[in-house]
Amino acid sequence: MTKEHELIERYFAPLSGGVASGAFGLLDDVGVMSPFPHGFDRLATVDTLVAGVHFFADDAPEDIAWKALAVNVSDIVAKGGAPADYLLALSLPETGAYGDDWLAAFAKGLQEAQTHFRCMLLGGDTVRTPGPLGISITLLGVAPVTQMVRRQGAKSGDLVYVSGHIGDAALGLLLRQGDERLQAAALDEAQRQALLQAYLRPQPSLALGQIIRPLASASMDISDGLAGDFARLCAASCVGGVIDSAALPLSPAATAALAASPDLLNTVLCGGDDYQLLFTVSPQQAEELEKTAASRGQKVSRIGGIVSASAGVKVLDADGEPLDLAKAAYDHFA
Amino acid sequence: MTKEHELIERYFAPLSGGVASGAFGLLDDVGVMSPFPHGFDRLATVDTLVAGVHFFADDAPEDIAWKALAVNVSDIVAKGGAPADYLLALSLPETGAYGDDWLAAFAKGLQEAQTHFRCMLLGGDTVRTPGPLGISITLLGVAPVTQMVRRQGAKSGDLVYVSGHIGDAALGLLLRQGDERLQAAALDEAQRQALLQAYLRPQPSLALGQIIRPLASASMDISDGLAGDFARLCAASCVGGVIDSAALPLSPAATAALAASPDLLNTVLCGGDDYQLLFTVSPQQAEELEKTAASRGQKVSRIGGIVSASAGVKVLDADGEPLDLAKAAYDHFA
Repeated sequence: MTKEHELIERYFAPLSGGVASGAFGLLDDVGVMSPFPHGFDRLATVDTLVAGVHFFADDAPEDIAWKALAVNVSDIVAKGGAPADYLLALSLPETGAYGDDWLAAFAKGLQEAQTHFRCMLLGGDTVRTPGPLGISITLLGVAPVTQMVRRQGAKSGDLVYVSGHIGDAALGLLLRQGDERLQAAALDEAQRQALLQAYLRPQPSLALGQIIRPLASASMDISDGLAGDFARLCAASCVGGVIDSAALPLSPAATAALAASPDLLNTVLCGGDDYQLLFTVSPQQAEELEKTAASRGQKVSRIGGIVSASAGVKVLDADGEPLDLAKAAYDHFA
Repeated sequence: MTKEHELIERYFAPLSGGVASGAFGLLDDVGVMSPFPHGFDRLATVDTLVAGVHFFADDAPEDIAWKALAVNVSDIVAKGGAPADYLLALSLPETGAYGDDWLAAFAKGLQEAQTHFRCMLLGGDTVRTPGPLGISITLLGVAPVTQMVRRQGAKSGDLVYVSGHIGDAALGLLLRQGDERLQAAALDEAQRQALLQAYLRPQPSLALGQIIRPLASASMDISDGLAGDFARLCAASCVGGVIDSAALPLSPAATAALAASPDLLNTVLCGGDDYQLLFTVSPQQAEELEKTAASRGQKVSRIGGIVSASAGVKVLDADGEPLDLAKAAYDHFA
């Protein structure tokens, strides 16, 4: 079996920017973060993905690597920050299933993702485990001092926005699992692929992070389902809020799926894995937000508004009636 | 089962310095690192511990927590840095073995360790896994700009030092495993406890990190056995080196064990888990190093010297004969 230092040298050192970078070619015990001028806050976040829990063990290694980095980028971007460096803690099963071919493909996926998301491998640790494959990435980023956008900060009267399309990833997971409702929807191949890819390859937008930073009153990424995450944002901000489900931005594939099986709306609202932004903007800033996003090719959609805490958190159906949110606050952990 | 946000609020938020700190009481997606004046490099390192691989699943949760943080502190200290913030990625088995009592004790151990090592919880992620307990900690630290002590930098003629005692943790592991040689050594209870504690509770010294920073030409922590780690330091520095095993600083317990079974020297040299510092100092700096360490109550011992690369890396026995190092470069991963 390949020794740890050989594995690092062969697969991961090329991701670290060479011996002249702060990662020192992964030849040292500690990395020095990318330098930034004074006036930036240093941000940090960590997310762990476990095979069989957060992805399928037989997913393409490139896709697993992409997702492991992208879910962290999503957090940093949602705060108006920019990624800079990351550390990779890889727990590799003792079985032979994760040999050289797998590692080469995994490193290729990481390379692709870090190039896309403009960050660099700063350090890591690789251990063997009797358990499933586990990938824990700590992403370090920056934002101008005190400008990180918090979950708290939404005020009554603010407008609620999301980026991109909602629900594609959750529908992609159902499709993957052979759910009958998605079979019944008779999606064409392009639509099927769009849903599957949304699940496999989250696409947080660095540009959008920069756009919302000076404009959003509160922001988070949608990882555990829009309805539940909206409830969390409202709770952190001590406000209530309303989402109009008829205003949800749906892809052609999701539109087709919901036309065939309207009850899939629950999946769209609560399914998780969107990795889109959920943010609030004051009415005075809304025009600038929409104009800036449009000019930079970023899709944002207004889906609701913030109200006082006493009014609670609601998602309305097409008739304006509140949906039952009891099951909506999805918790991976419950 | 406790929901993730309840678990965070109950056990981990108290470790984060409250809502006014950069961790925002763990109520947000991203933390802001502790502020430091301009002129500091930001350091980062990550280490993963897996139950059954790096510790025993039935170790006291307080000890597991301590070790998970201490092994990272050891890396930062070995580079002349100081810990500041850490992120915790916790993979909890789906079994009920890690319930509220376990988590409360684990959090207590973390609290104790972070107070001792002067750092704060900045963020984290908790997931369920069908595998064993896994703990991955990313530790963020600081050092004055460009003053981080690298593995490379040792020069022919430099003296080789280690901190503390060598081999206690590896002997503690053998003792725990019921090794006959340690039974034969007839250690007293205090000696047994010293070895067991060395394995359970590594004690990297923040003070020593500050002492070596301006004086050491190269440094690393000893995690995989002195002999193998010395070979790594020499390789990174493109030098050879000699360690005189008769000069190794041994605790009373290790001395007693080796007196009973001299072949335990191999365990002392190659066993791992020391988490002491291994560093080199030029002859001109040696006196200052020894004086400063003594004045601050830090035990450092000169155990050898650096030579040219062509002379290779050797560990000499008591008669000055090279020991067989073929098995010495222990690799957790091989």
